[in-house]
Amino acid sequence: MIQEITSATNQRVKDWAKLQTKRGRCKQGKYLLDGWHLVKEAIAAQAPLLEIIFTAESKHHTDLPDDLDVPYFQITDSIAKKLSTTPSPQGIFATVALPEPNAINPDEVQGAWLFLDQVQDPGNIGTLVRTADAAGFAGVVFGNGTADYHQPKVLRAMQGSQFHLQLVDADLTDWITSFRKRALPVFGSELNEEAKQYDQVGKYQDFALVMGNEGNGMQADLLALTSDNLYIPIKGYAESLNVAIAAGILMFQLRA
Amino acid sequence: MIQEITSATNQRVKDWAKLQTKRGRCKQGKYLLDGWHLVKEAIAAQAPLLEIIFTAESKHHTDLPDDLDVPYFQITDSIAKKLSTTPSPQGIFATVALPEPNAINPDEVQGAWLFLDQVQDPGNIGTLVRTADAAGFAGVVFGNGTADYHQPKVLRAMQGSQFHLQLVDADLTDWITSFRKRALPVFGSELNEEAKQYDQVGKYQDFALVMGNEGNGMQADLLALTSDNLYIPIKGYAESLNVAIAAGILMFQLRA
Repeated sequence: MIQEITSATNQRVKDWAKLQTKRGRCKQGKYLLDGWHLVKEAIAAQAPLLEIIFTAESKHHTDLPDDLDVPYFQITDSIAKKLSTTPSPQGIFATVALPEPNAINPDEVQGAWLFLDQVQDPGNIGTLVRTADAAGFAGVVFGNGTADYHQPKVLRAMQGSQFHLQLVDADLTDWITSFRKRALPVFGSELNEEAKQYDQVGKYQDFALVMGNEGNGMQADLLALTSDNLYIPIKGYAESLNVAIAAGILMFQLRA
Repeated sequence: MIQEITSATNQRVKDWAKLQTKRGRCKQGKYLLDGWHLVKEAIAAQAPLLEIIFTAESKHHTDLPDDLDVPYFQITDSIAKKLSTTPSPQGIFATVALPEPNAINPDEVQGAWLFLDQVQDPGNIGTLVRTADAAGFAGVVFGNGTADYHQPKVLRAMQGSQFHLQLVDADLTDWITSFRKRALPVFGSELNEEAKQYDQVGKYQDFALVMGNEGNGMQADLLALTSDNLYIPIKGYAESLNVAIAAGILMFQLRA
């Protein structure tokens, strides 16, 4: 049951290409995984796959199962180039249903959570989610103004971690307030030598860490809501750390 | 003494554009800084500046000193676009002399050193240097097969840290052997649960940390030369950490 597509002007191909944009993803209710690692992660996680798309060549290099209950499409190399945002695509793709806007209640969640306040760079966002996954975090909350995490560059840097932890779009004020009401620590982060040194606050099971925008850091009104704001001392002459590096150091330090 | 250039086919413009390639940089013995932050860092560090290049517009947005002892060139916006590898260039550039191939003797260096074994991604390399700078490291050694660090993407991610610490191209076998002879610890890193846990080895003033290739990790013959190989336990479901994230966690953990 493999359908072959050879024309780049085929309507399906045009629709898949539109998944590179947020508008296209919203309209079609799905997003595109590019590359065998991500497709394999989606299959392993039993993600809601909608279509498998591959070139003849790519089938030889992967152990793509042929019995998934979704339509399979064989495409040409030039169509693969059109669908991919990388210079040398592997030629294997899958579409996945966008998750339902989830109504996760911050009053009920457990574990460690990463809150992102207006983080902008897609590579940073993907790396932040991958690192939160590696650090054993339960989820990541994307505050208003944080970039869309189904865009190709974020997906590439996330390396499939969206299938391992919970991703939530929400208002950070609500989540911080809820954690504080439950007496769970919420650590802000700022480049301020008067903040608390990051390795002096102990380790926790249930808590939140907030990371801010690359250029401007966290918003002042959020900094005012946290239990403590943490600082990583800069020992050399760099002005700051990359946000994903800082978050990696903090997450591995704080998580019990 | 400002020379105005309005034609994109001007020979100087052609030469500057060639600085995007390694061949062009070697041939001309210089590299190009793109953006005010990097140019400002170079001026502050008294780096060997050769030329300042700017658009009329960019002069209004920066406090570029007009008394540097180098030629100034005013260019058009379209020339700026030609010189830059970013979609919206700030319109301010400088050329800097490539450092002399340095004969730093590993038998004599002090402090903490980061060794890079075949790290490939330009963004990772730049972030590694910036993070080593922030962690107070003395220098970074680029082993054979590690990507060139004067390419635009590395420079962008380094954010000027090349002016703050020593960067050396060298054979890592020599450097590891030298450190071991001096009884200085050399920590390798590997994704191997039988390696030593990274937070169980203490803190050091003089030591080296080796980070390996994104896909393959460190070369086996180098892993065999180190004093200890370290492992960061993965608590979630991610297969690994990004190399720059892992290095950030290790550098801040190990550096006294």
